Amino acid sequence: MKSPFKTDKAQALRDEARVLQALDLARLGLGMTSPNPPVGAVIYKEDRFLGSGYHHRAGEPHAERMALADALARGHGDDLKGSTLYVTLEPCSSYGKTPPCTQAIIDVGIKRVVYGVVDPDARHRGRANALLEAEGIEVQGGVAEKACRDFLRPWLHAVRTGCPWVIAKMGATLDGRIVRWGNQHQISGREALEYVHRLRLQSDAILVGGRTVRTDNPQLTIRFGVEMPEGKKQPWRVVFTQSVKNLPLDARIFTDEYSERTLVYECVDDFQGVLHELHEKYGVVTLLLEFGGHLLREWLERDLVQEWVQIISPYIGGGNELLLSGNDLKTERQLFDIRTQQFGKDFIIRGLLHGES
Amino acid sequence: MKSPFKTDKAQALRDEARVLQALDLARLGLGMTSPNPPVGAVIYKEDRFLGSGYHHRAGEPHAERMALADALARGHGDDLKGSTLYVTLEPCSSYGKTPPCTQAIIDVGIKRVVYGVVDPDARHRGRANALLEAEGIEVQGGVAEKACRDFLRPWLHAVRTGCPWVIAKMGATLDGRIVRWGNQHQISGREALEYVHRLRLQSDAILVGGRTVRTDNPQLTIRFGVEMPEGKKQPWRVVFTQSVKNLPLDARIFTDEYSERTLVYECVDDFQGVLHELHEKYGVVTLLLEFGGHLLREWLERDLVQEWVQIISPYIGGGNELLLSGNDLKTERQLFDIRTQQFGKDFIIRGLLHGES
Repeated sequence: MKSPFKTDKAQALRDEARVLQALDLARLGLGMTSPNPPVGAVIYKEDRFLGSGYHHRAGEPHAERMALADALARGHGDDLKGSTLYVTLEPCSSYGKTPPCTQAIIDVGIKRVVYGVVDPDARHRGRANALLEAEGIEVQGGVAEKACRDFLRPWLHAVRTGCPWVIAKMGATLDGRIVRWGNQHQISGREALEYVHRLRLQSDAILVGGRTVRTDNPQLTIRFGVEMPEGKKQPWRVVFTQSVKNLPLDARIFTDEYSERTLVYECVDDFQGVLHELHEKYGVVTLLLEFGGHLLREWLERDLVQEWVQIISPYIGGGNELLLSGNDLKTERQLFDIRTQQFGKDFIIRGLLHGES
Repeated sequence: MKSPFKTDKAQALRDEARVLQALDLARLGLGMTSPNPPVGAVIYKEDRFLGSGYHHRAGEPHAERMALADALARGHGDDLKGSTLYVTLEPCSSYGKTPPCTQAIIDVGIKRVVYGVVDPDARHRGRANALLEAEGIEVQGGVAEKACRDFLRPWLHAVRTGCPWVIAKMGATLDGRIVRWGNQHQISGREALEYVHRLRLQSDAILVGGRTVRTDNPQLTIRFGVEMPEGKKQPWRVVFTQSVKNLPLDARIFTDEYSERTLVYECVDDFQGVLHELHEKYGVVTLLLEFGGHLLREWLERDLVQEWVQIISPYIGGGNELLLSGNDLKTERQLFDIRTQQFGKDFIIRGLLHGES
C-alpha cells in the first residue's frame, strides 16, 4: 500500500518545481508587459510536458493561452484533456483585452490548476477558484507563493496602491558622494553600467530632476549593450522642474527620436498625484528614480520609495554632492531583503525600504 | 625514462603547496609577533611530514626552530638530515634575540630550503642563500611569493619605511554618514563588530582623535567574543588631541586596567614623526585608525593610509557627521585589491590605497 503522505509530499514538490519553471518563463516578460503583470505558465499531463508560455506584452495573449497554443503547436492538443496547468498568478476571470483564461482552461478540459499568487485585482481575486471548481476542476493556489510574490512585487504594489513601484537608483563613491551620470562612465565599470541599463529595461519610466537635465543632459534610454526586446518601448522620461523655462530646449530628451516619450511636470508638490497619473494614464508599473541628493531626500522623507539600488564604486571621491543632501533625515531608514553583487570593481547593494513585501 | 619536465613541474607544485601550508601556520601568529613578522615553517623528507611550527611572539623561537623542535618531539630527529624545510620568509642569518636560523638549518643537515619572500631587512636580505649554499644546501626563494608577500604586507612596509602599516577603519551608513562606536552597537550587527575586534587583534595600536574620546569614551580593547591568545597584549591606544586639557581624565582609556597602554600626543603636526616613533619605540607594525571624518580626511590627503576597511550598514542614516569631512578632497583615491564580505546584514569593503603591494 502506498503511503498517502509520501504521495502528497512528492506531488507538493513537483507542483512547486513546475510553478518555479513557469516563473522562469515569466521573467522573460519582465519590463515588457505593463500595465499587465509578467506571468508564465506550463502544462503537464502527469510527468509529460505538453507546452509552456509567457505573457509577452499588453494586448497579446496571457501566459495560459500561450501555453495552450504551445501545446497545440507541439501536437499535444488531444492530451490537454485531463492535464494540469501551472501558472505563477491566479488565472484571470474577466474580459479585458483578451477573453478570460478561466474559460479557455474549462474549454480544453484541464482537470487541475496550480498557481502561485492570488490576483489582488478586485475583478479577479479568488474568482478563478470558484469558476473552475464549479466545473469540477481541482484548483490549488499559493504554490511557490513567496518566489512568485517577490517577482510580482512591483505589479502587486501598483494594483494595491494605484501608484508605480518606485526604485531609487544612485551611483556613489565609498564616502557617499554622488556619481553623476557624466562621471559614471569614468567611475563605474562597464558591468555596473550594464546593470543600470538592465534596470531601465525593467522600468516603465525614469524620473529625474531638472538639475540632472541641465547638468548631465542625459539620454535616459536603454542602451549600453543591453538588447532591446522586440516591441519594448524606451521608458517614459519624466522630469520634475521648478519651471519649464529652466530646462534647455536642446536637451537630448527633448530632441532625440524618443522625444514623444518625455513628460515634464512643473512645480510639483503632490508627488503622489503624479505617481497616480503615471500609473493610470501611462501604465507605469515600475518607476526608476535617477535623482540627485535633494530630490532623493525629499522622496525618502515622504516615504515614496519602495526599493533602493546603490552602485558603490571603490573610490574615495570627496566630491561636493552628497548622495543624500542635508543632515538629520527625519527618519533613519533600514534596508530589508538585501542583495549585493559585485560587478567588475563595483558593488551593487539592493534592498527594500519596507520590511513586508 | 622519466620526463624531467614533468618531474620539475610536480616538484614546483609540491613546493608551492608546502609553502602555502607553512603560510597557514604563519597566520596563527598574526597580530602576536610584532615587531617580528608572523612566519610559518614545515619540514618534509620527500613525501613524509616531519614537523611544523610558527613564530608565536617576539623573543620566542622563530618558525624554523619551532618546526625543528616539533620534528624532534615527534621522534623524527634522525630523519632531519637530508630533509627539506619550507618557510614563508627567508630564514634569518644574524643574531637577534635568538641565534640565526641558518645555523640551525646547517647543524641538523637539512639539504634543501624553499621559502616565499626575501627578507627586506638589510641585515638578512639574500644572505641566507649565500650562507646555506656555501654549505651545499640547495636554496629556492620566491615560491608562493605573492601569497606570502600579501600576508606579510604590513611587516614588509614597516621594514621598508620605518613606519607602521596604517589601516583606516570606519563604520558608515549607505549614505556615507559615520557610525560612531556608541551607535555602532545599534547599527552594526554582531558579526561586523566581531570583525572589528578581530581587526584590532591583528593591530598593535589603535589611533583615535580627542573628539572620539570625548564623544564615545571608547575602551579600544579587544573583546566582543574575540578570544585573546595567550601572551597577546591589548593594543596601544594612541590619542591625538589639540590639548591634553580637552581630554576627560576619567575616560576609560585612562582609568581601566590597560591604562599603561594609552599614549597621548598633543598638537601633532608631524604625523610621520609619530608613526616612526610608534614603530621604533613601541614596535608597532600595524596601526588601526578609528577616526572621524576630519582626521581621516587629513591622513588621506597626506597619503598616510595604506589600507581601507569600511563597514557598510544597510541604513540610510542622514546623520550629521560625514565619513569624510568637507568637499573637494585634493586627490580622488581608488581602492585596489578589493575584498568584500557580508557579515550578517552588514558589508565590509576592504582594499589597498596603493596599487602596488
